[in-house]
Amino acid sequence: MGLFSKEIKTMEDLYLHALQDIYYAEQQILRSLDEMIEKATNRELTKAFKAHKAHTENQIDRLGQAFELLGEKPKGTSCPAIDGLLKEAKSVASDISDKALLDAALIAAAQAVEHYEITRYGTLITWSRQIGSGAVAKLLQITLKEEKAADKRLSELAQAKVNAKAAK
Amino acid sequence: MGLFSKEIKTMEDLYLHALQDIYYAEQQILRSLDEMIEKATNRELTKAFKAHKAHTENQIDRLGQAFELLGEKPKGTSCPAIDGLLKEAKSVASDISDKALLDAALIAAAQAVEHYEITRYGTLITWSRQIGSGAVAKLLQITLKEEKAADKRLSELAQAKVNAKAAK
Repeated sequence: MGLFSKEIKTMEDLYLHALQDIYYAEQQILRSLDEMIEKATNRELTKAFKAHKAHTENQIDRLGQAFELLGEKPKGTSCPAIDGLLKEAKSVASDISDKALLDAALIAAAQAVEHYEITRYGTLITWSRQIGSGAVAKLLQITLKEEKAADKRLSELAQAKVNAKAAK
Repeated sequence: MGLFSKEIKTMEDLYLHALQDIYYAEQQILRSLDEMIEKATNRELTKAFKAHKAHTENQIDRLGQAFELLGEKPKGTSCPAIDGLLKEAKSVASDISDKALLDAALIAAAQAVEHYEITRYGTLITWSRQIGSGAVAKLLQITLKEEKAADKRLSELAQAKVNAKAAK
């Protein structure tokens, strides 16, 4: 037996499981963002994490709407992937005392989380269309666009400011 | 204390840790690819996984060269992120008996792993340049290009063939 409470028999089962996986993941991300906001030193990085927190709240709302459109109750399911990603992120934070270096590490950790979201939303959008939920696909497309923009913003911030300071 | 055996004090420490993280991750991915090859039914998917296995072997070699260029011994470090991603991938495989549906789930799982590699190599390339290891950046750029191509190939395969069959 794997992690799921029942066997996945149809595309709809698989799709619903993926939705529950990201619903749980977003909630864990929301919690961890508070810690990242607290740890970040660079003002623009703090601002970027705060903006991402606001986006994450909207993204959770959007997932709620997606469940509703599908006639399902919003529910999370265990997601070892996000648990592992966040565990790694927390370890970095706890092992670095230099503030500039910590900023660089926090960006890397946040981008790993972004990429998890990018891949999961990408899959969900494709599967939404496959099972005929165009409305859900449209909704999640907004989230995917936000995730990609957040990832790009963090890359720019790292390259323009944070990494040079961390390497000093 | 976090996961690292010693505190990370410099950009070079952080960078080396990231290199050790992906070195461990690639080895775990290599192992899991055998299982994915065995589970996949669609002939093109099996072919894509086999190609990715060959790429992964080259990528591990490239990481070995990167360690050498830096005057370090190739070494892995614990990586809860990849452990979580692969745990989730294995759970999917064990909970689906329908072969076409399993192919769709395997693609999603493989793409989540690809995205972890994409984000880590992206960070490593930027950090390589920051610490003045242009040669390592160049080497890892080849790998990043391969990872992005593999991710794109899986998306195309899902959309062109696998998902429609899974939804039947």
